[in-house]
Amino acid sequence: MSVSDKKISFEVIKRLPRYYRYLRDLADAGVTKISSQALGKKMNVTASQIRQDLNCFGGFGQQGYGYNVEGLYSAIGEILGLHNGHKIIIVGAGHLGQALINFRSFERRGFTIIGVFDVSKDLVGKELCGHKVLHMDEVEDFVKKNKPDIAVLSIPKTAANDVTQKLISCGIKGFMNFCYIDIEVPDDVCVENVHLSDTLMTLSYRIKNTQEGKK
Amino acid sequence: MSVSDKKISFEVIKRLPRYYRYLRDLADAGVTKISSQALGKKMNVTASQIRQDLNCFGGFGQQGYGYNVEGLYSAIGEILGLHNGHKIIIVGAGHLGQALINFRSFERRGFTIIGVFDVSKDLVGKELCGHKVLHMDEVEDFVKKNKPDIAVLSIPKTAANDVTQKLISCGIKGFMNFCYIDIEVPDDVCVENVHLSDTLMTLSYRIKNTQEGKK
Repeated sequence: MSVSDKKISFEVIKRLPRYYRYLRDLADAGVTKISSQALGKKMNVTASQIRQDLNCFGGFGQQGYGYNVEGLYSAIGEILGLHNGHKIIIVGAGHLGQALINFRSFERRGFTIIGVFDVSKDLVGKELCGHKVLHMDEVEDFVKKNKPDIAVLSIPKTAANDVTQKLISCGIKGFMNFCYIDIEVPDDVCVENVHLSDTLMTLSYRIKNTQEGKK
Repeated sequence: MSVSDKKISFEVIKRLPRYYRYLRDLADAGVTKISSQALGKKMNVTASQIRQDLNCFGGFGQQGYGYNVEGLYSAIGEILGLHNGHKIIIVGAGHLGQALINFRSFERRGFTIIGVFDVSKDLVGKELCGHKVLHMDEVEDFVKKNKPDIAVLSIPKTAANDVTQKLISCGIKGFMNFCYIDIEVPDDVCVENVHLSDTLMTLSYRIKNTQEGKK
Protein backbone atom coordinates (compact mmCIF):
# COMPACT_ATOMS: atom_id res chain seq x y z
CA MET A 1 0.00 0.00 0.00
CA SER A 2 1.46 3.37 -0.92
CA VAL A 3 1.66 6.13 1.63
CA SER A 4 -0.91 8.22 -0.19
CA ASP A 5 -3.57 5.50 -0.02
CA LYS A 6 -3.98 6.01 3.71
CA LYS A 7 -6.46 8.35 5.29
CA ILE A 8 -4.66 10.86 7.47
CA SER A 9 -6.54 13.29 9.68
CA PHE A 10 -6.24 16.99 8.96
CA GLU A 11 -4.93 17.53 12.50
CA VAL A 12 -1.93 15.35 11.66
CA ILE A 13 -1.52 17.06 8.28
CA LYS A 14 -1.34 20.45 10.01
CA ARG A 15 1.57 19.15 12.06
CA LEU A 16 3.48 17.66 9.11
CA PRO A 17 5.24 20.86 7.97
CA ARG A 18 6.79 21.10 11.43
CA TYR A 19 8.09 17.51 11.27
CA TYR A 20 9.32 18.26 7.77
CA ARG A 21 11.29 21.25 9.03
CA TYR A 22 12.90 19.38 11.94
CA LEU A 23 13.78 16.39 9.76
CA ARG A 24 15.42 18.66 7.18
CA ASP A 25 17.51 20.32 9.90
CA LEU A 26 18.51 16.90 11.24
CA ALA A 27 19.46 15.62 7.79
CA ASP A 28 21.47 18.80 7.14
CA ALA A 29 23.29 18.18 10.42
CA GLY A 30 24.23 14.70 9.20
CA VAL A 31 21.80 12.76 11.42
CA THR A 32 20.62 9.61 9.61
CA LYS A 33 18.31 8.09 12.23
CA ILE A 34 16.48 9.31 15.30
CA SER A 35 14.27 7.75 17.96
CA SER A 36 10.79 9.05 18.72
CA GLN A 37 12.09 10.03 22.18
CA ALA A 38 14.93 12.13 20.78
CA LEU A 39 12.74 13.73 18.11
CA GLY A 40 10.04 14.41 20.69
CA LYS A 41 12.55 16.11 22.97
CA LYS A 42 13.76 18.34 20.15
CA MET A 43 10.21 19.24 19.12
CA ASN A 44 8.85 19.58 22.65
CA VAL A 45 6.11 16.96 22.12
CA THR A 46 5.77 13.48 23.62
CA ALA A 47 7.35 10.45 22.00
CA SER A 48 3.90 8.86 21.91
CA GLN A 49 2.46 11.79 19.94
CA ILE A 50 5.32 11.42 17.46
CA ARG A 51 4.75 7.67 17.11
CA GLN A 52 1.01 8.16 16.70
CA ASP A 53 1.45 10.83 14.02
CA LEU A 54 4.22 9.09 12.12
CA ASN A 55 2.68 5.62 12.26
CA CYS A 56 0.47 6.88 9.44
CA PHE A 57 3.46 6.53 7.15
CA GLY A 58 4.63 3.02 8.20
CA GLY A 59 8.01 1.57 7.44
CA PHE A 60 10.17 4.43 8.66
CA GLY A 61 10.13 3.67 12.35
CA GLN A 62 11.68 0.39 13.51
CA GLN A 63 11.80 -0.91 17.07
CA GLY A 64 15.27 -0.32 18.46
CA TYR A 65 16.35 1.64 15.39
CA GLY A 66 14.21 4.74 15.24
CA TYR A 67 13.26 6.71 12.17
CA ASN A 68 15.27 6.91 8.99
CA VAL A 69 15.58 10.69 8.75
CA GLU A 70 15.87 11.08 4.97
CA GLY A 71 13.23 8.41 4.32
CA LEU A 72 10.70 10.00 6.63
CA TYR A 73 11.48 13.48 5.30
CA SER A 74 10.86 12.27 1.78
CA ALA A 75 7.64 10.45 2.72
CA ILE A 76 6.25 13.56 4.40
CA GLY A 77 7.18 15.64 1.36
CA GLU A 78 5.25 13.17 -0.80
CA ILE A 79 2.18 13.33 1.46
CA LEU A 80 2.30 17.13 1.35
CA GLY A 81 2.47 17.06 -2.45
CA LEU A 82 5.84 18.77 -2.58
CA HIS A 83 7.67 16.32 -4.84
CA ASN A 84 6.70 17.86 -8.14
CA GLY A 85 7.08 21.41 -6.90
CA HIS A 86 4.56 24.23 -7.29
CA LYS A 87 4.58 27.28 -9.51
CA ILE A 88 3.18 30.33 -7.79
CA ILE A 89 2.28 33.86 -8.78
CA ILE A 90 2.27 36.87 -6.48
CA VAL A 91 -0.74 39.07 -7.09
CA GLY A 92 -0.12 42.47 -5.53
CA ALA A 93 3.45 43.78 -5.41
CA GLY A 94 3.06 46.31 -2.60
CA HIS A 95 5.04 46.09 0.63
CA LEU A 96 3.73 42.66 1.57
CA GLY A 97 4.05 41.26 -1.96
CA GLN A 98 7.64 42.48 -2.11
CA ALA A 99 8.40 40.87 1.23
CA LEU A 100 7.06 37.57 -0.11
CA ILE A 101 9.08 37.83 -3.32
CA ASN A 102 12.17 38.20 -1.15
CA PHE A 103 11.24 35.24 1.02
CA ARG A 104 13.87 32.59 0.35
CA SER A 105 12.26 29.70 2.19
CA PHE A 106 9.42 29.32 -0.34
CA GLU A 107 11.87 28.36 -3.08
CA ARG A 108 13.70 25.99 -0.76
CA ARG A 109 10.49 24.00 -0.26
CA GLY A 110 9.76 23.77 -3.96
CA PHE A 111 7.47 26.79 -4.34
CA THR A 112 8.82 28.76 -7.28
CA ILE A 113 7.58 32.26 -7.96
CA ILE A 114 7.10 32.50 -11.72
CA GLY A 115 5.19 35.77 -12.02
CA VAL A 116 4.42 38.98 -10.15
CA PHE A 117 1.41 41.17 -10.93
CA ASP A 118 0.07 44.57 -9.96
CA VAL A 119 -2.00 47.41 -11.38
CA SER A 120 0.04 50.35 -10.08
CA LYS A 121 1.87 52.44 -12.66
CA ASP A 122 4.71 52.82 -10.17
CA LEU A 123 5.23 49.07 -9.99
CA VAL A 124 4.35 47.59 -13.39
CA GLY A 125 7.52 47.16 -15.43
CA LYS A 126 9.76 47.45 -12.38
CA GLU A 127 12.13 44.60 -11.59
CA LEU A 128 11.74 43.11 -8.11
CA CYS A 129 14.22 40.46 -7.02
CA GLY A 130 14.60 39.25 -10.59
CA HIS A 131 10.89 39.43 -11.44
CA LYS A 132 9.53 42.05 -13.81
CA VAL A 133 6.16 43.16 -12.46
CA LEU A 134 3.44 42.54 -15.05
CA HIS A 135 0.11 44.33 -15.31
CA MET A 136 -2.96 42.46 -14.09
CA ASP A 137 -4.37 42.69 -17.61
CA GLU A 138 -1.77 40.12 -18.59
CA VAL A 139 -2.56 37.64 -15.84
CA GLU A 140 -5.03 35.48 -17.76
CA ASP A 141 -2.72 34.87 -20.71
CA PHE A 142 0.17 34.30 -18.34
CA VAL A 143 -1.68 31.71 -16.24
CA LYS A 144 -3.02 29.84 -19.27
CA LYS A 145 0.46 29.67 -20.77
CA ASN A 146 2.62 29.02 -17.71
CA LYS A 147 0.16 27.07 -15.56
CA PRO A 148 0.99 28.18 -12.02
CA ASP A 149 -1.26 26.33 -9.57
CA ILE A 150 -1.07 28.75 -6.63
CA ALA A 151 -1.79 32.48 -6.42
CA VAL A 152 -0.70 34.51 -3.42
CA LEU A 153 -3.14 37.39 -2.92
CA SER A 154 -1.61 40.49 -1.37
CA ILE A 155 -3.97 43.11 -2.78
CA PRO A 156 -6.52 45.48 -1.20
CA LYS A 157 -9.53 43.51 0.07
CA THR A 158 -11.91 45.48 -2.12
CA ALA A 159 -10.31 43.87 -5.18
CA ALA A 160 -9.98 40.39 -3.70
CA ASN A 161 -13.13 38.67 -4.94
CA ASP A 162 -13.01 39.98 -8.52
CA VAL A 163 -9.37 38.98 -8.86
CA THR A 164 -10.07 35.57 -7.32
CA GLN A 165 -12.85 34.83 -9.83
CA LYS A 166 -10.61 35.88 -12.71
CA LEU A 167 -7.78 33.63 -11.52
CA ILE A 168 -10.07 30.65 -10.95
CA SER A 169 -11.49 31.00 -14.44
CA CYS A 170 -8.03 30.64 -15.95
CA GLY A 171 -7.05 27.64 -13.85
CA ILE A 172 -5.59 28.59 -10.44
CA LYS A 173 -6.24 25.76 -7.97
CA GLY A 174 -5.09 27.24 -4.68
CA PHE A 175 -4.90 30.62 -2.97
CA MET A 176 -2.76 31.86 -0.15
CA ASN A 177 -4.94 34.77 0.88
CA PHE A 178 -3.50 37.71 2.79
CA CYS A 179 -6.52 39.95 2.08
CA TYR A 180 -8.54 40.60 5.19
CA ILE A 181 -11.70 39.16 3.68
CA ASP A 182 -13.00 35.66 3.01
CA ILE A 183 -12.71 34.95 -0.70
CA GLU A 184 -15.36 32.86 -2.42
CA VAL A 185 -14.18 29.74 -4.24
CA PRO A 186 -15.83 26.58 -5.58
CA ASP A 187 -15.26 23.19 -3.90
CA ASP A 188 -12.37 22.20 -6.13
CA VAL A 189 -10.32 25.30 -5.30
CA CYS A 190 -8.42 25.54 -1.99
CA VAL A 191 -7.72 28.56 0.19
CA GLU A 192 -5.35 29.07 3.09
CA ASN A 193 -5.93 32.40 4.80
CA VAL A 194 -3.16 34.34 6.47
CA HIS A 195 -5.03 36.92 8.50
CA LEU A 196 -2.30 38.64 10.46
CA SER A 197 -4.70 40.80 12.47
CA ASP A 198 -6.51 37.64 13.61
CA THR A 199 -3.21 36.18 14.77
CA LEU A 200 -2.53 39.31 16.84
CA MET A 201 -6.01 39.13 18.34
CA THR A 202 -5.52 35.49 19.34
CA LEU A 203 -2.19 36.48 20.87
CA SER A 204 -3.94 39.31 22.74
CA TYR A 205 -6.43 36.80 24.18
CA ARG A 206 -3.66 34.46 25.29
CA ILE A 207 -1.64 37.23 26.93
CA LYS A 208 -4.73 38.46 28.80
CA ASN A 209 -5.60 34.99 30.06
CA THR A 210 -2.02 34.12 30.99
CA GLN A 211 -1.68 37.34 32.99
CA GLU A 212 -5.09 36.84 34.65
CA GLY A 213 -4.12 33.28 35.55
CA LYS A 214 -1.10 34.66 37.44
CA LYS A 215 -3.16 36.99 39.63
CA MET B 1 -21.39 36.92 36.01
CA SER B 2 -19.06 38.86 33.77
CA VAL B 3 -18.20 37.59 30.33
CA SER B 4 -14.63 36.92 31.30
CA ASP B 5 -15.57 34.58 34.15
CA LYS B 6 -16.73 31.92 31.71
CA LYS B 7 -14.52 29.18 30.35
CA ILE B 8 -14.44 29.38 26.58
CA SER B 9 -12.78 26.68 24.51
CA PHE B 10 -9.75 27.63 22.46
CA GLU B 11 -11.54 26.40 19.34
CA VAL B 12 -14.18 29.09 19.88
CA ILE B 13 -11.50 31.68 20.67
CA LYS B 14 -9.78 30.93 17.36
CA ARG B 15 -13.06 31.78 15.59
CA LEU B 16 -13.69 35.02 17.48
CA PRO B 17 -11.51 37.31 15.32
CA ARG B 18 -13.62 36.29 12.32
CA TYR B 19 -16.87 37.15 14.13
CA TYR B 20 -15.25 40.38 15.23
CA ARG B 21 -14.44 41.29 11.63
CA TYR B 22 -17.93 40.52 10.31
CA LEU B 23 -19.61 42.40 13.16
CA ARG B 24 -17.41 45.47 12.54
CA ASP B 25 -18.35 45.41 8.83
CA LEU B 26 -22.03 45.09 9.75
CA ALA B 27 -21.85 47.95 12.24
CA ASP B 28 -20.03 50.12 9.69
CA ALA B 29 -22.84 49.35 7.24
CA GLY B 30 -25.36 50.64 9.79
CA VAL B 31 -26.76 47.23 10.79
CA THR B 32 -27.81 47.27 14.46
CA LYS B 33 -29.14 43.73 14.87
CA ILE B 34 -28.78 40.46 13.03
CA SER B 35 -30.21 36.95 13.40
CA SER B 36 -28.00 33.88 13.70
CA GLN B 37 -29.43 32.73 10.34
CA ALA B 38 -28.44 35.94 8.56
CA LEU B 39 -25.01 36.09 10.19
CA GLY B 40 -24.45 32.41 9.40
CA LYS B 41 -25.35 32.98 5.76
CA LYS B 42 -22.87 35.86 5.52
CA MET B 43 -20.12 33.87 7.21
CA ASN B 44 -20.88 30.59 5.46
CA VAL B 45 -21.40 28.65 8.70
CA THR B 46 -24.59 27.18 10.17
CA ALA B 47 -26.88 29.24 12.39
CA SER B 48 -26.51 26.56 15.03
CA GLN B 49 -22.70 26.90 15.03
CA ILE B 50 -23.13 30.65 15.49
CA ARG B 51 -25.59 30.20 18.36
CA GLN B 52 -23.34 27.62 20.02
CA ASP B 53 -20.26 29.86 19.76
CA LEU B 54 -21.97 33.08 20.79
CA ASN B 55 -24.00 31.57 23.62
CA CYS B 56 -20.74 31.75 25.56
CA PHE B 57 -21.30 35.49 25.83
CA GLY B 58 -24.99 35.46 26.87
CA GLY B 59 -27.32 38.40 26.69
CA PHE B 60 -26.67 39.50 23.14
CA GLY B 61 -28.93 37.06 21.36
CA GLN B 62 -32.66 37.31 22.02
CA GLN B 63 -35.34 35.03 20.60
CA GLY B 64 -37.09 36.86 17.77
CA TYR B 65 -34.67 39.78 17.94
CA GLY B 66 -31.26 38.44 17.04
CA TYR B 67 -27.90 39.79 18.10
CA ASN B 68 -27.19 43.39 19.01
CA VAL B 69 -24.31 44.03 16.60
CA GLU B 70 -22.42 46.71 18.55
CA GLY B 71 -22.99 44.93 21.87
CA LEU B 72 -21.68 41.63 20.59
CA TYR B 73 -18.76 43.31 18.82
CA SER B 74 -17.78 45.00 22.04
CA ALA B 75 -18.14 41.82 24.11
CA ILE B 76 -15.92 39.89 21.72
CA GLY B 77 -13.35 42.69 21.84
CA GLU B 78 -13.37 42.43 25.63
CA ILE B 79 -12.91 38.65 25.55
CA LEU B 80 -10.00 39.05 23.13
CA GLY B 81 -8.38 41.60 25.43
CA LEU B 82 -8.53 44.40 22.86
CA HIS B 83 -10.19 47.08 24.98
CA ASN B 84 -7.05 48.57 26.46
CA GLY B 85 -5.07 48.30 23.26
CA HIS B 86 -1.61 46.81 22.84
CA LYS B 87 1.74 48.44 22.24
CA ILE B 88 3.93 46.47 19.89
CA ILE B 89 7.48 46.64 18.64
CA ILE B 90 8.72 45.34 15.30
CA VAL B 91 12.06 43.59 15.65
CA GLY B 92 13.64 43.28 12.23
CA ALA B 93 12.98 46.02 9.68
CA GLY B 94 13.80 44.08 6.51
CA HIS B 95 11.25 43.52 3.75
CA LEU B 96 8.78 41.69 5.97
CA GLY B 97 9.19 44.09 8.88
CA GLN B 98 8.57 47.02 6.55
CA ALA B 99 5.46 45.35 5.18
CA LEU B 100 4.15 44.96 8.74
CA ILE B 101 4.93 48.60 9.61
CA ASN B 102 2.81 49.60 6.61
CA PHE B 103 -0.02 47.29 7.62
CA ARG B 104 -2.93 49.57 8.51
CA SER B 105 -5.25 46.97 9.99
CA PHE B 106 -3.10 46.39 13.09
CA GLU B 107 -3.66 49.96 14.25
CA ARG B 108 -7.38 49.72 13.51
CA ARG B 109 -7.70 46.80 15.96
CA GLY B 110 -5.82 48.61 18.70
CA PHE B 111 -2.32 47.30 18.07
CA THR B 112 -0.07 50.35 17.98
CA ILE B 113 3.49 50.06 16.72
CA ILE B 114 5.62 52.13 19.08
CA GLY B 115 9.11 51.08 18.07
CA VAL B 116 11.05 49.48 15.22
CA PHE B 117 14.46 47.84 15.67
CA ASP B 118 17.20 46.41 13.51
CA VAL B 119 20.96 45.92 13.52
CA SER B 120 21.68 46.84 9.90
CA LYS B 121 23.65 50.04 9.29
CA ASP B 122 21.49 50.63 6.22
CA LEU B 123 18.32 50.67 8.29
CA VAL B 124 19.15 52.09 11.72
CA GLY B 125 18.33 55.80 11.77
CA LYS B 126 16.14 55.55 8.69
CA GLU B 127 12.52 56.69 8.94
CA LEU B 128 9.96 54.05 7.94
CA CYS B 129 6.32 55.07 7.84
CA GLY B 130 6.87 57.57 10.64
CA HIS B 131 9.08 55.29 12.74
CA LYS B 132 12.77 55.95 13.13
CA VAL B 133 14.52 52.58 13.14
CA LEU B 134 16.47 52.11 16.39
CA HIS B 135 19.46 49.86 16.94
CA MET B 136 18.85 46.61 18.79
CA ASP B 137 21.30 47.80 21.47
CA GLU B 138 18.61 50.26 22.53
CA VAL B 139 15.79 47.71 22.77
CA GLU B 140 16.15 46.91 26.48
CA ASP B 141 16.00 50.53 27.62
CA PHE B 142 13.16 51.19 25.21
CA VAL B 143 11.06 48.26 26.43
CA LYS B 144 11.63 49.06 30.08
CA LYS B 145 10.62 52.68 29.54
CA ASN B 146 7.73 52.33 27.08
CA LYS B 147 6.36 48.94 28.14
CA PRO B 148 5.21 47.37 24.87
CA ASP B 149 3.68 43.95 25.58
CA ILE B 150 4.08 42.36 22.14
CA ALA B 151 7.17 41.92 19.95
CA VAL B 152 6.85 40.96 16.30
CA LEU B 153 9.92 38.97 15.27
CA SER B 154 10.90 39.35 11.62
CA ILE B 155 14.61 38.62 11.90
CA PRO B 156 16.85 35.81 10.60
CA LYS B 157 16.11 32.57 12.44
CA THR B 158 19.71 32.27 13.62
CA ALA B 159 19.17 35.35 15.81
CA ALA B 160 15.66 34.43 16.98
CA ASN B 161 16.35 32.70 20.28
CA ASP B 162 18.93 35.16 21.58
CA VAL B 163 16.69 38.11 20.77
CA THR B 164 13.69 36.36 22.32
CA GLN B 165 15.53 35.79 25.63
CA LYS B 166 16.64 39.43 25.68
CA LEU B 167 13.10 40.68 25.09
CA ILE B 168 11.58 38.37 27.70
CA SER B 169 14.11 39.56 30.28
CA CYS B 170 12.96 43.15 29.87
CA GLY B 171 9.26 42.34 30.04
CA ILE B 172 7.77 41.34 26.66
CA LYS B 173 4.75 39.08 27.26
CA GLY B 174 3.86 37.93 23.75
CA PHE B 175 5.56 37.20 20.45
CA MET B 176 4.26 37.12 16.93
CA ASN B 177 6.99 34.97 15.45
CA PHE B 178 7.69 35.05 11.71
CA CYS B 179 11.11 33.35 12.11
CA TYR B 180 11.09 29.86 10.71
CA ILE B 181 12.11 28.30 14.01
CA ASP B 182 10.33 27.51 17.26
CA ILE B 183 11.36 30.06 19.88
CA GLU B 184 11.75 29.00 23.51
CA VAL B 185 9.67 30.87 26.06
CA PRO B 186 8.61 30.27 29.68
CA ASP B 187 4.98 29.40 30.55
CA ASP B 188 3.94 32.99 31.22
CA VAL B 189 5.01 34.22 27.78
CA CYS B 190 2.82 33.55 24.72
CA VAL B 191 3.81 32.89 21.13
CA GLU B 192 1.79 32.87 17.92
CA ASN B 193 3.81 31.55 15.01
CA VAL B 194 3.28 32.73 11.46
CA HIS B 195 5.16 30.17 9.43
CA LEU B 196 4.34 31.11 5.86
CA SER B 197 6.15 28.13 4.35
CA ASP B 198 4.04 25.80 6.50
CA THR B 199 0.90 27.49 5.20
CA LEU B 200 2.02 26.89 1.62
CA MET B 201 2.76 23.24 2.42
CA THR B 202 -0.70 22.75 3.91
CA LEU B 203 -2.15 24.37 0.80
CA SER B 204 -0.06 22.03 -1.35
CA TYR B 205 -1.51 19.04 0.52
CA ARG B 206 -5.05 20.28 0.05
CA ILE B 207 -4.60 20.96 -3.65
CA LYS B 208 -3.13 17.49 -4.17
CA ASN B 209 -5.97 15.78 -2.33
CA THR B 210 -8.68 17.85 -3.98
CA GLN B 211 -7.31 17.06 -7.42
CA GLU B 212 -6.92 13.36 -6.57
CA GLY B 213 -10.49 13.30 -5.28
CA LYS B 214 -11.68 14.50 -8.71
CA LYS B 215 -9.99 11.67 -10.62
